[in-house]
Amino acid sequence: MHELILIGIGTGNPDHLTRQGEAAMQQADLILVPRKGPDKADLADLRRAICARVAPAVPVAEFDLPVRDAANPDYRHGVDDWHDAIALAWAAAAGSASRVALLVWGDPSLYDSTLRIAGRLSPPPRLRVVPGITAIQALCAAHAIALNEIGAPVVITTGRRLRDEGWPPGADRIVVMLDGDCAFRTLDPQGLRIWWGAYVGMTEELLISGDLAEAGPRIVTLRAEARARHGWIMDIYLLDRRPTAEG
Amino acid sequence: MHELILIGIGTGNPDHLTRQGEAAMQQADLILVPRKGPDKADLADLRRAICARVAPAVPVAEFDLPVRDAANPDYRHGVDDWHDAIALAWAAAAGSASRVALLVWGDPSLYDSTLRIAGRLSPPPRLRVVPGITAIQALCAAHAIALNEIGAPVVITTGRRLRDEGWPPGADRIVVMLDGDCAFRTLDPQGLRIWWGAYVGMTEELLISGDLAEAGPRIVTLRAEARARHGWIMDIYLLDRRPTAEG
Repeated sequence: MHELILIGIGTGNPDHLTRQGEAAMQQADLILVPRKGPDKADLADLRRAICARVAPAVPVAEFDLPVRDAANPDYRHGVDDWHDAIALAWAAAAGSASRVALLVWGDPSLYDSTLRIAGRLSPPPRLRVVPGITAIQALCAAHAIALNEIGAPVVITTGRRLRDEGWPPGADRIVVMLDGDCAFRTLDPQGLRIWWGAYVGMTEELLISGDLAEAGPRIVTLRAEARARHGWIMDIYLLDRRPTAEG
Repeated sequence: MHELILIGIGTGNPDHLTRQGEAAMQQADLILVPRKGPDKADLADLRRAICARVAPAVPVAEFDLPVRDAANPDYRHGVDDWHDAIALAWAAAAGSASRVALLVWGDPSLYDSTLRIAGRLSPPPRLRVVPGITAIQALCAAHAIALNEIGAPVVITTGRRLRDEGWPPGADRIVVMLDGDCAFRTLDPQGLRIWWGAYVGMTEELLISGDLAEAGPRIVTLRAEARARHGWIMDIYLLDRRPTAEG
């Protein structure tokens, strides 16, 4: 593998793909598609559909994504081992292909480990990144809202951080990702507003917005129902604590 | 105007446009292209080139973007008046067209006033937003780096905030936008690293990264040269203050 191209494909709408992403797929010798197990089958299907439409002449190599050893008591060490195993799986699936493309959900820069795994390949291939639509853009587009107030900062954080550390300092507006358990429930909802979305950009898209005190419980219920129905869920939300936001 | 479609076109690489953006352009009755004056001529040219290539059958209406009254001592009030004037200019340029598209640099959600101006249209049209590649994604892609460290927060802020308030609390990694004057010079560079880019995604792209103490002065020099040469500049940077970041 002499060159590895990480292509952001957006958040599940096949039309999130950019012209640059299409060209990069067509220039590849091989496209790697990970299989994550039956509960995420729709995502591998989406990747297959994109490959078939955009680059039908380029071979696709599917591989089973190694599973992280959740029993390892050292979380960080367990992740390191897991990333090593994924890098080996990429190399094995790539075989003798020289220019290899990987389709990355969203964008390779945002809460994604693909770049770190790529850093473990030996010998290191040349690395090229094609940016993609993130869940943040897709959420704001779906609600037709701005991410930031005029000239104001925004914090991007995780559900775990919000739960463990509370509202982050320094911003009245935050985006929360990687939240498997509705961490907004740990906040006093008084004065907070939320814009929530699941499967943003996909046909399954679900949106709720409003005062957190009122919208929060609706989100918890809808999220649980949707997760049970689809077998998986990806969601994201924006919170604002200013009294008179413009949205 | 019954429907207004705000289409994020990315950061100057015409191939940042998504399939969704292309389809939205082709479905419009009219595409509005603002003229911002001679110093930003290349940006109007880029919009024209995208229209000609993607939606040659759709009429394009160019209009002169009103100029903000910089003499107004009340900044916020001056901006309000300016946004009202822009909304009127849109309506005048749109004429009798029903479905109107506007091409927005980057993404409509991020430090962009298009959504707020759209809120001033009367009667209010239906609003649709098509997400686009932001300068943040384009910067990270160009440097092949992740925006965030594993599970860690990121603050998005402005040059003015950084200059006036120093390093924002709550994050070891920040993205700085809308910085006309290299606000990183106001920080003690000791232990800070920077990833800077101008014209990210465009053929004119300039990139510098390294320890701020060493890279900062190079950025200041290169930025001034590039600005003089092109007549305008757009740049963005990421700063990290952790001692042993992975990049």
